[in-house]
Amino acid sequence: MLFDEEMMLLALAEAQKAYDIGEIPVGAVIVDDEEKIISKGYNRRERDNSPVAHAEIIAIEKAAYFKKNWRLNDCTLYVTLEPCPMCAGAISNARIKRVVYGAFDEKGGALSSLFNLYELPLNHAPMVRSRVLERECGEILSKFFKNLRS
Amino acid sequence: MLFDEEMMLLALAEAQKAYDIGEIPVGAVIVDDEEKIISKGYNRRERDNSPVAHAEIIAIEKAAYFKKNWRLNDCTLYVTLEPCPMCAGAISNARIKRVVYGAFDEKGGALSSLFNLYELPLNHAPMVRSRVLERECGEILSKFFKNLRS
Repeated sequence: MLFDEEMMLLALAEAQKAYDIGEIPVGAVIVDDEEKIISKGYNRRERDNSPVAHAEIIAIEKAAYFKKNWRLNDCTLYVTLEPCPMCAGAISNARIKRVVYGAFDEKGGALSSLFNLYELPLNHAPMVRSRVLERECGEILSKFFKNLRS
Repeated sequence: MLFDEEMMLLALAEAQKAYDIGEIPVGAVIVDDEEKIISKGYNRRERDNSPVAHAEIIAIEKAAYFKKNWRLNDCTLYVTLEPCPMCAGAISNARIKRVVYGAFDEKGGALSSLFNLYELPLNHAPMVRSRVLERECGEILSKFFKNLRS
């Protein structure tokens, strides 16, 4: 299995942790240039009563804490769902080198769906790859919302 | 003194705390519908080694923790500087009713300068007021960057 796909499987395992506690299932993993896993996170908005507790923010906070540096410029962030404006902004603020995501978020995605934040003249814009394990990343969300409605 | 200006003075006092520890001086205050102060925050990016430790995020996290609810829909956020994309996104995610800011951030502001995030079809967009104590909010930043260069 290729490295991006392997890391997205780990992000999907994080999304499953969110699913298991009734949170919208989104997961993230941060990896450095040496392919070392620095941090993981999953959505905990309801559990933590926190509007900023998205998978990406949790993984970014942990990674910066671990590296004792707010600059994560040697890092790639893997996330199962296209980041929202808050998370896309946080990724830029953290100087993350590359973002890889799975499914598109048609209603709230800030890298392609709603708009592309990184086309604006920000201090820093990462490289972006989308559609990695797109089907699997979308399916866990569909399953969650289907159960919620029934 | 009018209420918005009074709250912005408190946000400026928060910005001064950031200034005093060598952080870019930005401060924020969150107030509810009954004009009760719920939380305060100031930029701690370097001190906390955290790329997300902007004044707004800290104030939002504290307010949600205090209210035991990620929805801050009865709240107004006061901040000395126009929010960046991350913070503008967090304000929307938190369903904050109204944002009041002081100085414009020509290079990174997401409510007017770089673009206006709230013109996009987000789940929630707050009301916005700008230029409250604009001169004072800008001056503390100018003083900080002038000292930094010399």
